[in-house]
Amino acid sequence: MAIGVGLLGLGTVGAGVAAILASPEGRHPLVRELALRRVAVRDPARPRPVAVDPALICADPQAVVDDPAVEIVVEVMGGLEPARSLILRAIAAGKPVVTANKAVIARHGEEIAAAAAERGVYVLIEAAVGGGIPIIEPLKQSLGGNRLQRVSGIINGTTNYILSRMADEGADYGAVLADAQRLGYAEADPAADVEGHDAADKIAILASLAFGCPVPRAAIATEGIDRLEARDVTYATQLGYVVKLLAVAERLDGLEGAEAGEGLPLDVRVHPTLLPRQHPLAGVHGVNNAILVEGDPVGQVMFFGPGAGAGPTASAVVADILNIAGIRQVGGDGTGLDPLLSAGSWRRCSLVDGSLSRHRNYVRLRTRDEAGVIGKIGTAFGAAGVSIQSIVQYEANSGDAEIVVITHDVVEADFRRALAAIDALSEVETVAACLRTL
Amino acid sequence: MAIGVGLLGLGTVGAGVAAILASPEGRHPLVRELALRRVAVRDPARPRPVAVDPALICADPQAVVDDPAVEIVVEVMGGLEPARSLILRAIAAGKPVVTANKAVIARHGEEIAAAAAERGVYVLIEAAVGGGIPIIEPLKQSLGGNRLQRVSGIINGTTNYILSRMADEGADYGAVLADAQRLGYAEADPAADVEGHDAADKIAILASLAFGCPVPRAAIATEGIDRLEARDVTYATQLGYVVKLLAVAERLDGLEGAEAGEGLPLDVRVHPTLLPRQHPLAGVHGVNNAILVEGDPVGQVMFFGPGAGAGPTASAVVADILNIAGIRQVGGDGTGLDPLLSAGSWRRCSLVDGSLSRHRNYVRLRTRDEAGVIGKIGTAFGAAGVSIQSIVQYEANSGDAEIVVITHDVVEADFRRALAAIDALSEVETVAACLRTL
Repeated sequence: MAIGVGLLGLGTVGAGVAAILASPEGRHPLVRELALRRVAVRDPARPRPVAVDPALICADPQAVVDDPAVEIVVEVMGGLEPARSLILRAIAAGKPVVTANKAVIARHGEEIAAAAAERGVYVLIEAAVGGGIPIIEPLKQSLGGNRLQRVSGIINGTTNYILSRMADEGADYGAVLADAQRLGYAEADPAADVEGHDAADKIAILASLAFGCPVPRAAIATEGIDRLEARDVTYATQLGYVVKLLAVAERLDGLEGAEAGEGLPLDVRVHPTLLPRQHPLAGVHGVNNAILVEGDPVGQVMFFGPGAGAGPTASAVVADILNIAGIRQVGGDGTGLDPLLSAGSWRRCSLVDGSLSRHRNYVRLRTRDEAGVIGKIGTAFGAAGVSIQSIVQYEANSGDAEIVVITHDVVEADFRRALAAIDALSEVETVAACLRTL
Repeated sequence: MAIGVGLLGLGTVGAGVAAILASPEGRHPLVRELALRRVAVRDPARPRPVAVDPALICADPQAVVDDPAVEIVVEVMGGLEPARSLILRAIAAGKPVVTANKAVIARHGEEIAAAAAERGVYVLIEAAVGGGIPIIEPLKQSLGGNRLQRVSGIINGTTNYILSRMADEGADYGAVLADAQRLGYAEADPAADVEGHDAADKIAILASLAFGCPVPRAAIATEGIDRLEARDVTYATQLGYVVKLLAVAERLDGLEGAEAGEGLPLDVRVHPTLLPRQHPLAGVHGVNNAILVEGDPVGQVMFFGPGAGAGPTASAVVADILNIAGIRQVGGDGTGLDPLLSAGSWRRCSLVDGSLSRHRNYVRLRTRDEAGVIGKIGTAFGAAGVSIQSIVQYEANSGDAEIVVITHDVVEADFRRALAAIDALSEVETVAACLRTL
């Protein structure tokens, strides 16, 4: 009756999974049905934080995939290769796969999904986004009655930790990053997090599930927090906003200028964003993650929790293993898949040119400290058809002034044209910062 | 290939479900497979907010259950009877049931679950708690790897609306209730909401799923907001708290004084509660709901959204219908159930005596306005072993004073003893309010 589990990787997440399987008491009784059969690690001699029978450990991940006693393959090694090949190998052998690997799914998800559909096995990915937060399962199984309009989220804990501290302490990006690295909240090479690539991987996955289409990962406009200045975080706070690294996927039906006939037009992007303080995502602090899903008729629902860490991520991996084990008990001839759980694509999408989207903007200008500058800036925006919500001059020194403008909703292309005109004003020295605003 | 759906009830939720089934485009493709076959209403002549083929409408709910074309029975009529009998009748006929009826499930859930297990059909209840928020499904299918410690939530929108306005406006309960009734946020007979019974129904359901045991609904200690005074909401705000009607279910292992051998000791209760302003549930305003789930190893995850309303509730009902439709595609001989989806009980619990639980307290005392009163109160609490976090005297008039005490964590029984001693002090006129504090 036991179901054999093979683990590829025994890092923090793998060890967390092994720890859950080794101590089923108090958890769902189905956990008792799971038996760890084999574990592949890079260096079998290395000491592990969890007690795993040494006889199960080997250095050959293919041997784990191929082992007849392994019925479910759990990929928690990370990286693109050999993870991708091992996942495809498991699928080819007719074995369901559970993976926490957002990079592989974001980049090779279409290939993997096609192979899984062809072979009739599940590939489950709850742990790939949002750590311990149940978000993949709800998107697949609880919101299917809706026409989803938008999925937006804070889905990178490292950057949210850095932004939270910048806001709380008025501190500089570089100083907080260094401290976060010292404390283990940021990697020695932080690029994947701070440049937004990790969040882009995750929003590609969320968008593909929310809208039922493969999302071209490479086409996602991505801007990180690595060039964010402390003063913009501070000004945002003073104006009633918080700055978050937001990943957004939204459908833009009926958008003027979007080409027809290429499938659902989606705007998918990652960038630092000003959120009004009352926004549901504005209260998400530190390493927490949250995902807001908006649709008709559900309205707004939000999922919040720890976005990373061994325990939360292991919780999500085990959830997927349990789902596969649970559905096996339905019996059957093994030829049918639950279409909600398998979550295949059912339409195509095309990512629209970001210049067509409408949104508010925060702009910080360095100008000469002269009378009439605010008037000239306001006039220039107005002449370009960009309506302004607020314009504030902050402290000036040595002949310079800083002016912060928040615009109303405006088409990005129109806004860029207005900004070019303003940059050309003799009183304006430079456009020092420009951030999207919800 | 189409799956026949029978609706019991065509009120706001039923009409919302019918509207989704009638317009599948843009929703999950499985919605197209659902066909509305028959609808029972009390008065077939009444005009409806949704276009339903009049040939489908009848006044006999049993006929809907018995109709061979109806493969899934959706109960959205509410009330205990005939809802309970109709659900049991559908189960007896081997038909899966989807219900939004929290009262029936909270009171007759064990009977219904036993009948469903015996007959091998699903009874799904996503819409019974939290409106459109996916919470039942995640509890059943995404958190099974955890040892859950506590489920707490704001799960009644009417009271949260009233409390939000009392806090924002410093308004009296009665005035806000009357306005809420006028605006449609509260029923003409508000008892089920404001006395906490609706929240108690829902926490009984959440607790039974989180801990895998039937929870005796009648044993849940329930206190509503109907005796809450505006001044306590105001003082709480000044002290850094917000007052929420919280429903809590938590395991109290190793509790001194709890009897052994009666299953998992649970503390399940509903009462107005002071939450520190930074608590994840403190930011839930208006008619929104949120449920916080805490366990090992996931930590804290929270689910937030619209807790009621036709659209959100219909979204949850359709999610359940889709789940049943999806799992049918697995094929099989029809004898096996996915144990995660069917969510049977797998242990027993006993509700512990609330006097054994430990928590903080907010107490408001009316005292004589004399020097030394605060000292005497502090001394009396100290003598009873109750340690105090803060003690503040608020405005006094005509010889009276109001003193607010917030205690540290203390066993309820010890606290009650201390309070009796304080009430007996000649300087203390009355214990005017007493609220649990997280």
